[in-house]
Amino acid sequence: MKEFLLIGIGAGDPDYLTLQAIKAINRVDVFFVLDKRAETAALTRFRRQICEEFATDRPWRFVTLQDPVRDQSQGKYTSVVEAWHHARAILLEQAIENELEQGQCGALLLWGDPALYDSAMRLMEIIQTRGNLALNYRVIPGITSVQALVAGHRIPLNRIGESVHITTGRQLAQGFPEDLDAVLVMLDGELSYRKVMEEDMEIFWGAYLGTRDEILIAGPVNSVTPRIEQARQAAREEKGWIMDTYLLRRPRRSR
Amino acid sequence: MKEFLLIGIGAGDPDYLTLQAIKAINRVDVFFVLDKRAETAALTRFRRQICEEFATDRPWRFVTLQDPVRDQSQGKYTSVVEAWHHARAILLEQAIENELEQGQCGALLLWGDPALYDSAMRLMEIIQTRGNLALNYRVIPGITSVQALVAGHRIPLNRIGESVHITTGRQLAQGFPEDLDAVLVMLDGELSYRKVMEEDMEIFWGAYLGTRDEILIAGPVNSVTPRIEQARQAAREEKGWIMDTYLLRRPRRSR
Repeated sequence: MKEFLLIGIGAGDPDYLTLQAIKAINRVDVFFVLDKRAETAALTRFRRQICEEFATDRPWRFVTLQDPVRDQSQGKYTSVVEAWHHARAILLEQAIENELEQGQCGALLLWGDPALYDSAMRLMEIIQTRGNLALNYRVIPGITSVQALVAGHRIPLNRIGESVHITTGRQLAQGFPEDLDAVLVMLDGELSYRKVMEEDMEIFWGAYLGTRDEILIAGPVNSVTPRIEQARQAAREEKGWIMDTYLLRRPRRSR
Repeated sequence: MKEFLLIGIGAGDPDYLTLQAIKAINRVDVFFVLDKRAETAALTRFRRQICEEFATDRPWRFVTLQDPVRDQSQGKYTSVVEAWHHARAILLEQAIENELEQGQCGALLLWGDPALYDSAMRLMEIIQTRGNLALNYRVIPGITSVQALVAGHRIPLNRIGESVHITTGRQLAQGFPEDLDAVLVMLDGELSYRKVMEEDMEIFWGAYLGTRDEILIAGPVNSVTPRIEQARQAAREEKGWIMDTYLLRRPRRSR
């Protein structure tokens, strides 16, 4: 039996690491890295720093896998993503087979929480279903960028009695959900809220959350959007990548 | 100026503490406790244990406040809650005034994340608006029971491309949201999903998440509901209180 850990390392600040994550990191023999894109080099560097600082109990090594390219040219979004997950799962399965000995522990260090918009659990499920590897895996939760965002702005995720709705830029572009007053948006490459914003909405936006480059901007959408666009473009030019998140909300309807 | 910290301590396992929370705990002179109900004695004990174990850098003390009773007899839900928050805010303001000296740091240790179904940030806002205290406050995020739930079940919060919707038992009882396939439910004293469940739904349920008493049950709603009811009742009788959370979902519609 091999052990495998999906470890949430939080949203950018090493201080977001939980004690559980630190203990988990110290059980690991091999850290696997699925290197998604050139722009994520900074994230890979961050993972390595985490290991160097916290994985002090035993020798460990990094194994970097060249991530398969996602073929976005054809098919429905869901099928394209599923095919890509399948290719990634096989890649990871082979790497675990080749690089991890029986009784050893492998891990992926995952940005934020492994349960939120991350495919690692799906890869594990595919590997389990294929049944070639005897693998015992566990999931360690981490602080998400959504939590870092609202902590930074000092606002609750929900107003009294309200639901919390977390969605993607892709989904938001199809319309602000009819029966909700607030949405949290992740994975939005292009500030999709501009397509659906209403005059009296307010936004709480953040980028590079939890890091020393953190930017927080909040206010009525109409007046702060130019500032957000400008900050975003300047930061992207300087660093080559950006990760941002925001809460968009309507004034409270009375209930 | 007085400093005040809202510190998320996670969902039950002390190992859910982040390094940020531990550093914050070590800046605190006075931990304030709003003692909600007799049944939360276990939670108060947990907070004290956290302090005894982790607050090692300086002397500190506990100040327990007798929480005002929430008058549920009249008024709309939102107004009742708002009036209660106002009463709690005044109580906390007075305690900070009396118990915390200038330059000292006070804190509330909050279950889960201070941003998710917790009123502490609202109390701070009311205190700020009243303007009687010069208070500088910060928010430290923590691992929520929702994250502990899905980590325990090893399932993602969202399926591919899906939104994440977190709601309360109270809201769910009004109907499963029309355009969603999955909801996460917190603060549900009575398994409200039984009022809205559909034959082909599945549930991932958990109680006392992250503690050594953790119970996890998952499966098709029809077949596992009796087991959940039984486990819930037995645990409640034994411990006198229960805190549970669940993910309820429909089979995936094709998109």
